[in-house]
Amino acid sequence: MTPNPVVVEVSRGDRVESFHRGAAVVVDARGIIIHTIGDTQRPIYPRSAVKPLQALPLVASGAADRFGLSLAELAIASGSHAGTADHLSVVEGMLRKAGSTPVQLECGTHRPFDEASSRDLDARGIQATPLHNNCSGKHAGFLCVARALDADPTGYTEPAHPVMREVAAALAATTGASHDTANRGTDGCSIPTFAIPLSAVATGFARLGTGTDLPDSLARAAARIREAVAAHPEMVAGAGRFDTRVNAAGGGAILCKCGAEGMGAAALPTLGLGIAVKIDDGASRAVEVVMARILGSLLRGTSEVDAVLDGLADQALQNWRGTVIGRVQATHHVGRTL
Amino acid sequence: MTPNPVVVEVSRGDRVESFHRGAAVVVDARGIIIHTIGDTQRPIYPRSAVKPLQALPLVASGAADRFGLSLAELAIASGSHAGTADHLSVVEGMLRKAGSTPVQLECGTHRPFDEASSRDLDARGIQATPLHNNCSGKHAGFLCVARALDADPTGYTEPAHPVMREVAAALAATTGASHDTANRGTDGCSIPTFAIPLSAVATGFARLGTGTDLPDSLARAAARIREAVAAHPEMVAGAGRFDTRVNAAGGGAILCKCGAEGMGAAALPTLGLGIAVKIDDGASRAVEVVMARILGSLLRGTSEVDAVLDGLADQALQNWRGTVIGRVQATHHVGRTL
Repeated sequence: MTPNPVVVEVSRGDRVESFHRGAAVVVDARGIIIHTIGDTQRPIYPRSAVKPLQALPLVASGAADRFGLSLAELAIASGSHAGTADHLSVVEGMLRKAGSTPVQLECGTHRPFDEASSRDLDARGIQATPLHNNCSGKHAGFLCVARALDADPTGYTEPAHPVMREVAAALAATTGASHDTANRGTDGCSIPTFAIPLSAVATGFARLGTGTDLPDSLARAAARIREAVAAHPEMVAGAGRFDTRVNAAGGGAILCKCGAEGMGAAALPTLGLGIAVKIDDGASRAVEVVMARILGSLLRGTSEVDAVLDGLADQALQNWRGTVIGRVQATHHVGRTL
Repeated sequence: MTPNPVVVEVSRGDRVESFHRGAAVVVDARGIIIHTIGDTQRPIYPRSAVKPLQALPLVASGAADRFGLSLAELAIASGSHAGTADHLSVVEGMLRKAGSTPVQLECGTHRPFDEASSRDLDARGIQATPLHNNCSGKHAGFLCVARALDADPTGYTEPAHPVMREVAAALAATTGASHDTANRGTDGCSIPTFAIPLSAVATGFARLGTGTDLPDSLARAAARIREAVAAHPEMVAGAGRFDTRVNAAGGGAILCKCGAEGMGAAALPTLGLGIAVKIDDGASRAVEVVMARILGSLLRGTSEVDAVLDGLADQALQNWRGTVIGRVQATHHVGRTL
């Protein structure tokens, strides 16, 4: 197997200290590959990068209409939130609308990604709950789908549960890849994650961005998810975090979602393109730099958008006294022009 | 350039999700290479992995004797501590003995690595200080050396300062590699870090473990640092952290120190060997697994030591509900027997 190319270099002084290999692919909405870097056919787990696809049944099942879900609620169902008070308030609102409660969440518990929120818990002597889990918005969406399907919500994270079957069907329809027991692993939040080619993830996002080749119900759901993310980028990640910064800068022209272990995916609706990136070693710092470079290459927009993307694709590294001691940069394999 | 081999695989379900490439080398005290994996001649920054070598002037300069430094103080000067109350108390004691104060520390500030200590700061409404920086023990040692050399301590982190010249000379003497402006970068704690071949790092640790080919003053200093780390492994990192667990299990037969960006180094005094590991992408999770596998291969000891090292070389991954969903494992390239 030929190793994937080096896509990110981390330098200190005038030397490369560490580097990241990976693969990336750009496809159009018919799944035609426009550009590839590295092996984009090896099955990879897309993890949380496909949350916007996993949220499609929330609209397509009728749950969003039945419970009157807001755009902020659809955005947080498509996101990995930071566990701030604002995020929790939106998730709790969704649960109430579906007649569900936080104890029904099966995502498990971790402390808020947002540092200030995490410290605030300690200052108030409060333990983190499943609501603080970055996936609780997605899981609240799953509980809404369970209610809309009149299914017992218990065990909604199990592969055979009606909700997970709807989600796997939406993933299969958008990506064109099979989602079955043979390629199934378990995600951090206990739902299945399916290993599929990176090119299939990109195809899923190209279709999410355009509705091309999707059944009407999924195409309409895709439009609602796009509208939600564009209206509430702060619900997809949180202040200062990559997905929120990129989606806010894009103003509807970018729908980007990263996930654990170096995964990233994006739709460029106005260009009809989908993008997927996987860093071999799973590094978040690397996928963000690569994604920013690809987005910036494809979507030369206003100077404000370009400045955000260029800044994310070539970042200064500071030490504990604030001295710039190196950089994190996309390499020429990613390139300024694809 | 041939890519380094895959040394660690991170699996989810029955598939490899992410993987890490890297290099490793085992040498004897004369610098003869016993075993290599990947490119061990490319210059790399050893970062905090060489703290035990950077601590040699603290003894060799006479500072340790003059200020009556304890073994705990020599251990924390060789370590990357977790910022617990116990760690801070030892660092403050060193500073007092040298007539120095925390405001003289030039390492910069970060929050304690130890989560409970970090939360305790918030609960008490206290800001982190340079004392909490994992390098403050090393820097307190530098201030002791400055005093012993009758040098103005201001700017002790600058390459031209007498303290940094002593440290660079000790690194050159032990590793056999040149340490000059041509291969100098700036470390996270503001002191110079010099890019040298991985094999030279291993040689430095083989000599640290044996005193072979070192001037008497450095050989005696090496013996004191070994004694200090063996007596106080909890000062080198902290409860539950890799270096502390490994050094405690080794009981003097292992002196292991990891650093940022996937660096690790170890001495096996009883075998007269030195080890160095660099993960290409800089991942801590990977260097720990590789180091544990190499240590376990070379040093089959009591069943207790073997159990600790085997457990660290092949770790279960759990999700947020505690379900085991994968593993982090050294590959056959590292191997059970070298």
